Amino acid sequence: MNGADVLCDVLLANDVNVCFANPGTSEMHFVAALDRKPEMRCVLGLFEGVVTGAADGYARMTDRPAATLLHTGPGLANGLANIHNARRARVPMINIVGDHASYHLPLDAPLTSDIETLAAPMSNWVRRISGPADVAPSAQAAVRASLTPPGIATLILPADAAWGGAGPVPSARAVPAPPPAFDMDVVRKIAEAVRASHGRVGMVLRGRAARQDALEIAGRISAALDVRLFSEVLVARMQRGRGRVAPTRIPYPIDAARALLADIDVLILVGAKEPVAFFAYPGKPGRLVCEGCEVMTLAEHGEDLEAALAALGDELGVKPLQPVSVATAFPDEPAPRGTLTDDAIAVSVARKLPENAIVCDEAVTSARRYFALSAFAAPHDYMMGTGGSIGGGIPMAIGAAIACPGRKVINLEADGSGMYTVQGLWTQAREKLDVVTIVFSNRTYAILHAEMRNVGVNAIGENARRMLDLDQPILDWVSLANGMGLEAARADTCERFEALLDSALSRPGPFLIEAMV
Amino acid sequence: MNGADVLCDVLLANDVNVCFANPGTSEMHFVAALDRKPEMRCVLGLFEGVVTGAADGYARMTDRPAATLLHTGPGLANGLANIHNARRARVPMINIVGDHASYHLPLDAPLTSDIETLAAPMSNWVRRISGPADVAPSAQAAVRASLTPPGIATLILPADAAWGGAGPVPSARAVPAPPPAFDMDVVRKIAEAVRASHGRVGMVLRGRAARQDALEIAGRISAALDVRLFSEVLVARMQRGRGRVAPTRIPYPIDAARALLADIDVLILVGAKEPVAFFAYPGKPGRLVCEGCEVMTLAEHGEDLEAALAALGDELGVKPLQPVSVATAFPDEPAPRGTLTDDAIAVSVARKLPENAIVCDEAVTSARRYFALSAFAAPHDYMMGTGGSIGGGIPMAIGAAIACPGRKVINLEADGSGMYTVQGLWTQAREKLDVVTIVFSNRTYAILHAEMRNVGVNAIGENARRMLDLDQPILDWVSLANGMGLEAARADTCERFEALLDSALSRPGPFLIEAMV
Repeated sequence: MNGADVLCDVLLANDVNVCFANPGTSEMHFVAALDRKPEMRCVLGLFEGVVTGAADGYARMTDRPAATLLHTGPGLANGLANIHNARRARVPMINIVGDHASYHLPLDAPLTSDIETLAAPMSNWVRRISGPADVAPSAQAAVRASLTPPGIATLILPADAAWGGAGPVPSARAVPAPPPAFDMDVVRKIAEAVRASHGRVGMVLRGRAARQDALEIAGRISAALDVRLFSEVLVARMQRGRGRVAPTRIPYPIDAARALLADIDVLILVGAKEPVAFFAYPGKPGRLVCEGCEVMTLAEHGEDLEAALAALGDELGVKPLQPVSVATAFPDEPAPRGTLTDDAIAVSVARKLPENAIVCDEAVTSARRYFALSAFAAPHDYMMGTGGSIGGGIPMAIGAAIACPGRKVINLEADGSGMYTVQGLWTQAREKLDVVTIVFSNRTYAILHAEMRNVGVNAIGENARRMLDLDQPILDWVSLANGMGLEAARADTCERFEALLDSALSRPGPFLIEAMV
Repeated sequence: MNGADVLCDVLLANDVNVCFANPGTSEMHFVAALDRKPEMRCVLGLFEGVVTGAADGYARMTDRPAATLLHTGPGLANGLANIHNARRARVPMINIVGDHASYHLPLDAPLTSDIETLAAPMSNWVRRISGPADVAPSAQAAVRASLTPPGIATLILPADAAWGGAGPVPSARAVPAPPPAFDMDVVRKIAEAVRASHGRVGMVLRGRAARQDALEIAGRISAALDVRLFSEVLVARMQRGRGRVAPTRIPYPIDAARALLADIDVLILVGAKEPVAFFAYPGKPGRLVCEGCEVMTLAEHGEDLEAALAALGDELGVKPLQPVSVATAFPDEPAPRGTLTDDAIAVSVARKLPENAIVCDEAVTSARRYFALSAFAAPHDYMMGTGGSIGGGIPMAIGAAIACPGRKVINLEADGSGMYTVQGLWTQAREKLDVVTIVFSNRTYAILHAEMRNVGVNAIGENARRMLDLDQPILDWVSLANGMGLEAARADTCERFEALLDSALSRPGPFLIEAMV
C-alpha cells in the first residue's frame, strides 16, 4: 500500500469523505489512490479558489472538514483567499498540497516554491510529510488539527511520500483535543455585570452560539434582562427565520455600528471577537463600542457556547420556559412590483424562501436589506464570507449543497464578487447541485464608490471610474452561465424576477438569475 | 501632497506608467491619486491573477516593470501564481499591496493577514512602507529593486501612509544596481572546452540571449564550431521566425530531453539554468544532461549576455560575418484540411502569423508542434508561462498587447488553463486589445492523462476521470467570451479555422476562436 492510499484511508476512516480537488502532476499518485476509493466523493473545481471556498461552505454546514487537493505552491496560492475566509469563519479544513518528490526540490524545477511559508498565514497548522512512513501519523495529526479549533490544517504531500510503500493504515480514529471548559467564575462575573447594567447590556453571538438552541437560550436571557443580541458584521453561519431568536447584525459603516452600540455599557462576547471597524478611516475610531464599555468574554470559539449560555441563564435565574421574542409573520408591505431593485429582490427572496434553505450571501452592498428580513422568512441557515475576501459566494454554495443534499441553496451574489470565482458555476452544473444563484448585476464595485466618498472624493475622473465600474463592456451573466453548462435567465422587473425565482425553486438542480438592478 | 500622490509620482518619474489594478477599500487614496494622474494608464482586471499575469506579459515585452495594485493579503494571494510565473521569467514587476492603516492592524479586522510572509516566496524584494515620509524612499527602492535582477518587488502600502502628508517627490530617478560583468577567465575556459569537445557541445540560451542579435552571435558560434543551440523547456521570451537563428527547445518528457542531450559533453548556460526534469518520477533521474557532462555558465541572468556571447565568439575566432544557419521557407507540406487537429492549428498559425506578432503559448500539450514551426513563421516574439503555474496565458496576452500597440498578439490557450484566469477576456474586450485568443478545446486536462500513464495507471475509473476531464458539461467558449463582451466563433474544421483566423488577423481588436480538437 503506498502513501497515497494510506492518506485516503486515514481520511475515510475519519469520515472525511469529500475531496474538493484541482490536481496536477505531482498529485497523480494521490488521484490514482482516490480512484480506488469510490466512497470518497471527488469534486473538481476549475480553479483552486472554487475548491477551497467549497470546502469552507461544506464545513460551515457540517462542522466537519472536507479535504482539498491542491497542486504545489501556486495551486495553494490560488486557494488562499478562500482559505482566509474559512480561517475567519473558524471552520475545519484539511488542505492537501502536493509537492515535488523530496529529492527533486534541490533542483529548483519551475514549480518549486516555499509551500510552508505560503501556507502559514492562512493556516492554523502546517506539516510536511517526511516520507512514506510518516503519511499515516501526519494524516491523523491533520485530521486532529482540523477538528481542534481553530481548524485550518495544511498537509504537504511530497510525491515520493505518496508513491512510496507506507505500511498499514492505523485503525484508530484521530481524536481532537477536548474543548476547553468555560470558566464559571467568568459566568458569575458576567451575570453580576448584566444585573448592574440592566438595559445597557449587549451580547454578540457567533459560531455554535448562533444555532437555534443556543439562540433560544440567549433569547430568554434577552427577554428576561433586556439584553440586546447582536451578530458580527460578517456572519459565519446563523440559523434564522420565523420562530427563531433574531439578533441584530452590527452594521458595516462605522457610524451606524457605533450608533447601534452607543448605549451598551457591557458587551458580552459568546464565541465572538470584539467588534471593530472593517477598515480604518482618517479621524475615525477602530473600536466600535463606546468609551468605557466593558467587553467581557463569556466563552471563546471552541468552548461549549450553548452550555456557557445556559450557565449564564441559570446564574441570572432565567427559567427554561421564560418566553422569548421571536419573529412571526412577515412585515406587512406590498409585494414588490415594477422596476427591479436590490431591496425588492431581498423582499422576494425572504418571502419565497423554502423551509430549511441555506442562504449564501455575497451580495456585498446589494442585499443589505436581506439580513433583517431573514428573521421573518421560513427557518433557514444564513452565511456570508467572513474574511472580507470576495469570491467566496459561488464556491460556498457548492460546499453547502454537497453538505446538505435535499436542502435548497440560494446564493445572493454581487457581479463584482462573483467574477473572482465564476468558474464555480461549472462545478454546480456538473454536480447538478441544488443551487439558485441570484446575481445582483449593478455593473459596478458599488462598495468602492461608497468608499471613495468615505475618503472624501465625490467627483471621480476617468482613471478611478475605470477601476470602479464594470461596464464597457457589460457582463452578460446568462451567457457566462450557459458557457459553463448552467441554465440561466435575466430579470429586470420584479414580476419577471419572482416568476424566475418561483420556477427555480419549484425544481431541483442549479439555476442562475441575472437580476438587472 | 499625500503619500499616495508621492507614490504615483515616483512611479511616473521612473517611467512606470501602466498600473494593472484590482483595488479595494484600503487602496482608495491610491485610486484617488491615480485619478489625478491621467498619464498613468490604469487597467482593471476582474481577478488579481489577471492583474499580475498582465504585468508579467508587459515586462517580458518591455524589460520594464508595470505596477500592480492589489488589495491586502487575499488580493496578493490571488495574484501569487502569476507572480510565481513572472519570477521564473525573471522579469521586473512592482506589486503595490494596500494594507490597513498601521494602527488598525492590532485590531485584527477580518481582512488582516501577514502580507510580508505571503509575499516572500514569490518576491525577490519585499518592503512595508513605515509611514508617509517613507513613501518616497520606499517607492524609489522598489523601482530600483525591480530593475536590478531578479526583479519582483512587492511594496506594502498601509492606508495611513497613503493618506498622510508625505512632502515633496524626489527629483532623482531610481538607479538600478549596475549589472555584474561577466568573467573573461570563464569565457576563455569555455572556449577551451568548446574546442576540446568539438561536436559535443550544447548551449542553452535564455533571456536577453534569446533576442535576435544575441541569437545571431550564438548562431555564428554554432555554425563555426558545431555547437548545438537549445532553449529551456519553458521559454520566457524568444525572438523566432524566418531569418533568425532557431534553437531547439528541450522537450518536457524526461526521456526525450535526455535523448536530445545524450551526446552533449559540455553544456554552456547563457542566462539559463541547468535543465532539469519538470517533475520527478519513480526511478527516473532529475538531471537531464548525461553522466559526466560538464555544465558551464558563460553568464548569468542580469549580466550582459550578448556581450558575453560576443566575447566567446572572439575567443573562438568566430568572424562577425561568419554565415549562420537560419530557417527560410516554410516546410513543404499541404495546407491542413478537414477535421481540425492540434497540429493543424499549429501549422495554420505558423503559416499565417503576421510580421512582428507576439505569440503567448499556454496551450500546454496542444500546441506542441508550434515551437518547431515558429522558426519558419514570420519574425515574431514567442513566450510561454515559465513557472509551470497555469492561468498565465490570457493575462500575459493583455500585458503584451498593452506593451506593444500595433503588434498582433496571438494567445494559444488550452481550455483547462484558460479557465483559471478566464476573467482576462473581459479586460481584453474593455481595452480593445489586439489579441486573438485560440482556445484548444479538448475538454480534458490532457497533460494529466499523460501523467497518469507516466505513473503507471492506464485504465482510470470514475473518480480519476471526473478529476481529469472537463466534459459534463462541456465548456462553451463562445458563450463565455460573449458573456465578457468579446466577439468569438467556433471552428471544427481546418477550413473554418483558417477563415476565422484570416478574419481575426485582418482587423484590429480582440477575438476568440474556439477550436474544437
